[in-house]
Amino acid sequence: MPSEFDLIARFFTRPTALAALGIGDDCALLTHKAGMKMAVSCDMLVSGVHFFPDTDPRQLGHKSLAVNLSDLAAMGAKPVAFTLAISLPASDEKWLKPFSEGMFALAEKHHCELIGGDTTRGPLNICITIFGEVPVNEALRRDHAKAGDDIWVSGTLGDARAALEFLKGTAPVDPAILGPALTRLQMPEPRVKLGMAIRPFAHAAIDLSDGLTGDLSHILNRSSVGATLNLDALPAGQALLDQPRDFQLRCMLSGGDDYELCFTAPLSSRDRIRHAARQTGVPVTMIGTIEEKPGLRLVNAKGEAQTFSGQSFDHFSDS
Amino acid sequence: MPSEFDLIARFFTRPTALAALGIGDDCALLTHKAGMKMAVSCDMLVSGVHFFPDTDPRQLGHKSLAVNLSDLAAMGAKPVAFTLAISLPASDEKWLKPFSEGMFALAEKHHCELIGGDTTRGPLNICITIFGEVPVNEALRRDHAKAGDDIWVSGTLGDARAALEFLKGTAPVDPAILGPALTRLQMPEPRVKLGMAIRPFAHAAIDLSDGLTGDLSHILNRSSVGATLNLDALPAGQALLDQPRDFQLRCMLSGGDDYELCFTAPLSSRDRIRHAARQTGVPVTMIGTIEEKPGLRLVNAKGEAQTFSGQSFDHFSDS
Repeated sequence: MPSEFDLIARFFTRPTALAALGIGDDCALLTHKAGMKMAVSCDMLVSGVHFFPDTDPRQLGHKSLAVNLSDLAAMGAKPVAFTLAISLPASDEKWLKPFSEGMFALAEKHHCELIGGDTTRGPLNICITIFGEVPVNEALRRDHAKAGDDIWVSGTLGDARAALEFLKGTAPVDPAILGPALTRLQMPEPRVKLGMAIRPFAHAAIDLSDGLTGDLSHILNRSSVGATLNLDALPAGQALLDQPRDFQLRCMLSGGDDYELCFTAPLSSRDRIRHAARQTGVPVTMIGTIEEKPGLRLVNAKGEAQTFSGQSFDHFSDS
Repeated sequence: MPSEFDLIARFFTRPTALAALGIGDDCALLTHKAGMKMAVSCDMLVSGVHFFPDTDPRQLGHKSLAVNLSDLAAMGAKPVAFTLAISLPASDEKWLKPFSEGMFALAEKHHCELIGGDTTRGPLNICITIFGEVPVNEALRRDHAKAGDDIWVSGTLGDARAALEFLKGTAPVDPAILGPALTRLQMPEPRVKLGMAIRPFAHAAIDLSDGLTGDLSHILNRSSVGATLNLDALPAGQALLDQPRDFQLRCMLSGGDDYELCFTAPLSSRDRIRHAARQTGVPVTMIGTIEEKPGLRLVNAKGEAQTFSGQSFDHFSDS
């Protein structure tokens, strides 16, 4: 079996352009840019919890990095570099090769360099810490939503959850439209360019990993505001179009794994938001309004109150 | 069972002084200092691989951060902040409270802030990514050793391995001196201050996590040099003093888990190295010489060649 150092050299060492010192020392060294803050985020993906043990390794390599890039997108930060710590039951080259290829393909697309990490034996666990840069005072924080802001969401919602329910055998999905939904689940596209494009004129943002209502609540709580969401305005994913309304709403409101951006911006920014969406090729939809009154209210297109009992996903909750 | 967000709030959220934005957003934000590079390191500790599943959680919290601080020490970097990703079989408060206390006690000692991370369900796995700052061009890299340099090591070697062998029941260690050795294994003191103090006049450094010969070889390989080590000069830990010479050498040369610094410096720096040691309260010992001829040679005090067959620890090797 190849040694730890062989593994690192073979699959995870590539020349670094931006970092002053990459893999191979006690630490990597990152160079600072004047006028920038460094955004840092960290996600841990566990086999059997966040993905099925037999998940295609190329897709898993993509997704492991994508969920971290999505956190940078939600801050409006430009990706710079990342570290990868991975524990593996065995040093399986047939698994590591496609995993690293899937990861590096996405990394190169976003000019984000692997600068260090750790490989060890153990139950499959992937932990990426990612670094991005954002101009001082321009980061899209969760605590800057203002009463009167529009609430926007990028792309469409619910396809990833519909695909997951299909994989679990709990929902019938037309195989003809399952393919794109599976791609949404397994190979999400982090909205990095959109996040950077709306940064100058949006107030607050979050990426949708746990589900719209749960994730939006983080913005509401930290900004000490409330909101009304128009359920009829939610952009449903393709796989949901022929599904019962209750299933649609569950997938869109609490499905998780969408990795779209939910953000708030003043009315005066509408044209610039739409322009940013066109420029980055990512559609955006206005889905509600930030209000002073705390809490999250759901209405239909006529403004009539709606109820929804679904819960957001939480790794340690009772549900 | 408390939710993921409750856990984060209860055990891992403390006010941040240095970071512009700490736990609670998509990313943390770190402020840059002019003239500094950011040193980044990442270690993953897996239950049953790096520590016994029943390890005292307070000691584990200390050690998880200590091994990362040790990487900063080996670069001469000043600790700034860290992220913690942890997967847990269950959200056990009786485990999390002492774990977080052990971690924060060490973090506060080194003025290193927890700025973000991830908690999830899964087999026990702790991944810390740490950030430090080091003046541009002063980092202690592995590739800067020069022929003629002295080779130094801090503190003593081998106690941690002796304690591990005792815990495994494979070596008899006098219980009277086991206590300090166990502390070396379970609560290592990262040599952060020494690393910063020798930074201006040392050439290369590494921290001893896998064992002296293996770790020193990384310096030799990356600096394209060789070395001669004087085995009689190695500073043996207390638990080794009454042990057979072969056991002493195995623990000192390939024991691992010492978390001392091994560094090289020109002869002209000897007085300043010794002054730095006195100032930081960490003894240092000259143990050999860097040479142009590749390879690592072992000699005794008389300069006679010695042989040693031990291997450094490698998580994926056949041994």
